[in-house]
Amino acid sequence: MTWPITYEDVVSASRRLDPFLTPTPLRSYSTLDAALGCHVLVKHENHQPTNAFKIRNGLAALTALEPEEKKHGVVAATRGNHGLGLAYAGHMLQIPVTICVPEGNNPEKNEAIRGLGARLVEEGSDYDEAVLVMKRLVASQGLRMIHSTNEPLVIAGAGTLTQEILTQAKRLGESIDAMVVAVGGGSQSVGAMTVIQELAPQIPVYGVQAAGAPAIYESWKRRKPIVLEKADTFADGVATRMTYELTFQALLDGLADFVIVSEEEIAEAVRMMIQTTHNLAEGAGAMGLAGLIRLGQRLAGKTVAIVLSGSNIDRETLAQIYR
Amino acid sequence: MTWPITYEDVVSASRRLDPFLTPTPLRSYSTLDAALGCHVLVKHENHQPTNAFKIRNGLAALTALEPEEKKHGVVAATRGNHGLGLAYAGHMLQIPVTICVPEGNNPEKNEAIRGLGARLVEEGSDYDEAVLVMKRLVASQGLRMIHSTNEPLVIAGAGTLTQEILTQAKRLGESIDAMVVAVGGGSQSVGAMTVIQELAPQIPVYGVQAAGAPAIYESWKRRKPIVLEKADTFADGVATRMTYELTFQALLDGLADFVIVSEEEIAEAVRMMIQTTHNLAEGAGAMGLAGLIRLGQRLAGKTVAIVLSGSNIDRETLAQIYR
Repeated sequence: MTWPITYEDVVSASRRLDPFLTPTPLRSYSTLDAALGCHVLVKHENHQPTNAFKIRNGLAALTALEPEEKKHGVVAATRGNHGLGLAYAGHMLQIPVTICVPEGNNPEKNEAIRGLGARLVEEGSDYDEAVLVMKRLVASQGLRMIHSTNEPLVIAGAGTLTQEILTQAKRLGESIDAMVVAVGGGSQSVGAMTVIQELAPQIPVYGVQAAGAPAIYESWKRRKPIVLEKADTFADGVATRMTYELTFQALLDGLADFVIVSEEEIAEAVRMMIQTTHNLAEGAGAMGLAGLIRLGQRLAGKTVAIVLSGSNIDRETLAQIYR
Repeated sequence: MTWPITYEDVVSASRRLDPFLTPTPLRSYSTLDAALGCHVLVKHENHQPTNAFKIRNGLAALTALEPEEKKHGVVAATRGNHGLGLAYAGHMLQIPVTICVPEGNNPEKNEAIRGLGARLVEEGSDYDEAVLVMKRLVASQGLRMIHSTNEPLVIAGAGTLTQEILTQAKRLGESIDAMVVAVGGGSQSVGAMTVIQELAPQIPVYGVQAAGAPAIYESWKRRKPIVLEKADTFADGVATRMTYELTFQALLDGLADFVIVSEEEIAEAVRMMIQTTHNLAEGAGAMGLAGLIRLGQRLAGKTVAIVLSGSNIDRETLAQIYR
């Protein structure tokens, strides 16, 4: 089995994050449980500064750099939340950050990245083209690349949220039967499985992708990487169109199953998350819930952990969801 | 000057809350600052369990009861958040809680109150009629009344959020020039002024009411209590139609000024809060922001603290705001 990080990497990342972040709550809601017919534990990563779990990834990476790398600065490609996390971390640690986003990216994420003092480069038609722009800047300007997925430090950072979930569930007297996790590049899910395999290997982890951006799902089903022409989903945080070297084999080996959800299912999950928890969710942030609904009867009566992974939905998208 | 509580009451409440609550973040957003032309510090009471600051009020009250009162249980009238706070506190402290809401109350708040194990009594046409129901239950069933405003323990609980704001602002190196606070019954604002008069008396506190429920605003302007026939605003958390004995004189003596905002101004503040902070807000929860916008030029360039006091907006109301 090829596994990109160890549990010790997560523990080490957790120690580095400790001075900067407060554990986010793990909560349950009687109204959500009643709607789904199972007991749902919601991890509130929307409470993070930057409103997304990716702050963990950014901080885990920047706190581990060599002094020379810190001085030159870092570059990343993102649809927003990874960039926001890095920009926030760079702001706190005084490390120069350059963020590459595709043209037409979520304007509120762009503004917030700039507001944190990062340099924003808008180029390319989607995430995977922004990655090429990033690679060009690495070559031409000597910046340290912080890939949103293909970076062990990033995956270890994402793993810290599942470490928190297990600790908090124990304190609450909850016994988790399953976890359902959105898959964009795979940092959240592979981070989760790294922790679960060490601490609670009996818990199955289910992956969820958008039907409009199903590259990793399709690759997982065929057990070999495929690349799609486009990624078409309003859940911009998971709008990828290929597999990633560091996470694909782990997803193949580790996921109990993988499902896809339609745009309408994601929209309904956003509305249900808001209605039952009264917390805002972006599309990708409600995908764990959408996947749980899709898994339906298979998880009836179980205690299931999901991650409200982010709430950076823009005004127009939210308006469309309520239209 | 008649002041209903002392700063020491707030400090004491804060000590009682400490084992149960984590301080909520105080954050600023470059996008919000840019939109308003001042520097805004947002106190995230939407991060509380129950998604509203009223959990402080409920816990402050229930942790201070006599053993005999705890055994018999408590009763309160509410449009929702006070009831949710008490239900949550009762659940944690194993104290029986009865909540009186008017008929046609926010259904999501009702469900959540029931979900926390409280007894829900739906009777009366508005908040002030639910108060009469509560008084009847006090007389007939010997329950301890926890009034949402006319209760020193409640006001002290609300004061703890401003105590946190001042501590956090100092740590962030921020110097607050003004605070803008929604007025429903007055617990949040009188709690705030109690703390500010002790620790930072140079900070003016501004009150905000809804133009559709302006009883305290009108009373403040005329310097004598008036009662209105109805309270008509989608911001149900501030839909009162009279003054309250324990807070009115303090509001007269303490508020730097008082403004009212229209339904459309509250709706736009909800949208702006969501768009710039990516946190959900209910009508009353965005009223500090609505008041700040209304105060406009008077606070230009200043550092202003506001409270995102709650996010329990129901699905239909949110949909209407985005229609």
